[in-house]
Amino acid sequence: MQYSFSKRIQSVESSAVRDILKLTQGKSIISFAGGLPAEEWFPVDAIRNASERVFRQGPQALQYGLTEGTLSLRERLAVRLGSQRNIQAEADELLITSGSQQAIDLFTRAMLDPGDVVLVENPTYLACLQVLGMYNARVIPVESDDNGMVPEDLAAKLKQHQPKFVYVVPTFGNPTGRVWSLERREALLRLCREHEVLILEDDPYGDLRFTSDRVPNIAALEGRTDDRIVAYTSTFSKTVAPGLRTGWIVADERIIRMIARAKQSSDLHSSVLDQLILSEMLLPEVFNLDDHIHKLSAVYKERMETMATELQKDMWRDTKWNTPQGGMFFWVELPEGLDAQTLLKCAVEKGVAFVPGTSFYAGEPKRNTMRLNFSFAQPETIRTGMERLTEAVSEFFGRYSGV
Amino acid sequence: MQYSFSKRIQSVESSAVRDILKLTQGKSIISFAGGLPAEEWFPVDAIRNASERVFRQGPQALQYGLTEGTLSLRERLAVRLGSQRNIQAEADELLITSGSQQAIDLFTRAMLDPGDVVLVENPTYLACLQVLGMYNARVIPVESDDNGMVPEDLAAKLKQHQPKFVYVVPTFGNPTGRVWSLERREALLRLCREHEVLILEDDPYGDLRFTSDRVPNIAALEGRTDDRIVAYTSTFSKTVAPGLRTGWIVADERIIRMIARAKQSSDLHSSVLDQLILSEMLLPEVFNLDDHIHKLSAVYKERMETMATELQKDMWRDTKWNTPQGGMFFWVELPEGLDAQTLLKCAVEKGVAFVPGTSFYAGEPKRNTMRLNFSFAQPETIRTGMERLTEAVSEFFGRYSGV
Repeated sequence: MQYSFSKRIQSVESSAVRDILKLTQGKSIISFAGGLPAEEWFPVDAIRNASERVFRQGPQALQYGLTEGTLSLRERLAVRLGSQRNIQAEADELLITSGSQQAIDLFTRAMLDPGDVVLVENPTYLACLQVLGMYNARVIPVESDDNGMVPEDLAAKLKQHQPKFVYVVPTFGNPTGRVWSLERREALLRLCREHEVLILEDDPYGDLRFTSDRVPNIAALEGRTDDRIVAYTSTFSKTVAPGLRTGWIVADERIIRMIARAKQSSDLHSSVLDQLILSEMLLPEVFNLDDHIHKLSAVYKERMETMATELQKDMWRDTKWNTPQGGMFFWVELPEGLDAQTLLKCAVEKGVAFVPGTSFYAGEPKRNTMRLNFSFAQPETIRTGMERLTEAVSEFFGRYSGV
Repeated sequence: MQYSFSKRIQSVESSAVRDILKLTQGKSIISFAGGLPAEEWFPVDAIRNASERVFRQGPQALQYGLTEGTLSLRERLAVRLGSQRNIQAEADELLITSGSQQAIDLFTRAMLDPGDVVLVENPTYLACLQVLGMYNARVIPVESDDNGMVPEDLAAKLKQHQPKFVYVVPTFGNPTGRVWSLERREALLRLCREHEVLILEDDPYGDLRFTSDRVPNIAALEGRTDDRIVAYTSTFSKTVAPGLRTGWIVADERIIRMIARAKQSSDLHSSVLDQLILSEMLLPEVFNLDDHIHKLSAVYKERMETMATELQKDMWRDTKWNTPQGGMFFWVELPEGLDAQTLLKCAVEKGVAFVPGTSFYAGEPKRNTMRLNFSFAQPETIRTGMERLTEAVSEFFGRYSGV
């Protein structure tokens, strides 16, 4: 029997990261492919203590929960967003999701009719492109450089396409690690206001910062006005642990109400146990989240520097990359004409993996790009993996020299 | 600014149960409205012990997980489904979801193009109708009686509409509590095989059984053949605790692969902590789930009987209802011409709430129907609530006598 699947599900490709994981299965491969946090730094003791406090609350803590999310978590998160990021929100303007991936999915479900246009950076977060495909969006990439979307191209495309929203990862973005300048953030806000177009600001990495510079979030620049156009999403996956599967979205209350409707039909609500554990962990007497983030950022900075040292070696001289100011990724451009997909095959033979940049492009991809994750592996492993990768690059470049 | 939401989100009504909860907020109302399990019976100690075992597994237990779900949980669940329900499945034919609500959502996402037809019982599960609305299904109700869908009408509608799938809750169904007869289950399977149409068997209540009679699941009747047409979904929400937000779906591996693709864009994966806790709880040395279900069923049976005793009182003589053989609900028909929505207003004034049946119908609703939940409130509260409801019914009938 031929099963007849929906067009949407057939149109979406399986994730490149997953395919690479398959490729590496059962082999002793060092992977710079996934966007995994350093698990040896998960605050397991604090999570355990918090869970003990939750179980002491009695059985009603494990009953069906509110679709919008557990109230105490929303309230504490709202306070934290105000003090840490200058994003002002009431609990009613905040909805808890199963990771920020679900925030992207529900926001899109609430906003998008088939054929509607969404503007994205180029390249951008792979799994957002998958969501947009699921809802039959027309995805239009906006010209982007190291400072963010180029305002002239953005203005032209806002005018030409009347998009439903603009999706951006402006701080230590995935895959490029780039940080939008203040000017570009202000330009995005101003242009979208002018055209009455919403912005979805995806900020999973904003806390993982290696310098003292902090460019304000776009949601903070907008402030808590009437008729907000910015929806802001982030997650505990990178700062506490992804297995607790908890993210959130902040937006105008009218938008949150529609997202709640989408969530109700999607999964009723997220894990109450996870939410209550995280709610406890926002209490200073249970856990010092700021201190933890501070330490974690130092750990990631060291790993980033370890990888940077390897990338400075002679064999990489014809590649382009920037030193990340935060986040989890290096974005490397190979010389024009080379295909990172082919390099990957060579790398896997040497025992190391990464993600070719191709999958992150909405339009025509730059095939000579690749993403390297530096947060997961420990420095010694990063060095070994980079030695293997450098060897692969060396052979690969040798093979194509003169191309 | 007018936000412009998607047509799909605007077309779906907010849940009647939610609206009733709003109506009752801040008042001392006894609610027979929600489908909530008895929280004083949640096995909190076992959940706590299981979580301790999970935390001892070390930090990698809290890393990003597989989209399909934690392997140990899928393996143990597969064994359990085989032994308890005679549903034969390998771990690869099973995907873990955030409650069975998400199983319905993801199955629909993987299968349905806008305008495709889905056949449903009439009445049927409210939140499934919401999902079908979200994906712009054409929902066609099949004539249904106390034994399930009427085969003649089903055959005609399969032929006429070539539906993508048939959605059924054949065991202690929501809202009616009905149990499909073996003959009707076999007829459904045979007719759908003939027309090559998939069946989604939703079975959240099957374990909550008050008699020793057990009609086989439709998935068990089909067996583990090639080209299976039955997808089966159930949940731990009713047997362990809904706050752990864990359900599952069993289907042909090709279907599971597409559902995994849908889940990947939806939320990457479900809470790993919840999954690992439940995986531990399937070990006999950690928890005796069968014994727990046995006790819980006895508790619910007592509550059901308490409510039945009240419904046998004289004032209810003109209503129709069946004694449930399991599950969580009474389905009550008022005399023709009366509107349960109007009765609800009267009931809320008296301090008791229920769900009018209207929202459970795909087509023209029977306005004289109502759903009463008996699993949540303890017997004493059920008696008090039913006294209030009987009083409301008495006034309501009095007002409309002669209508």
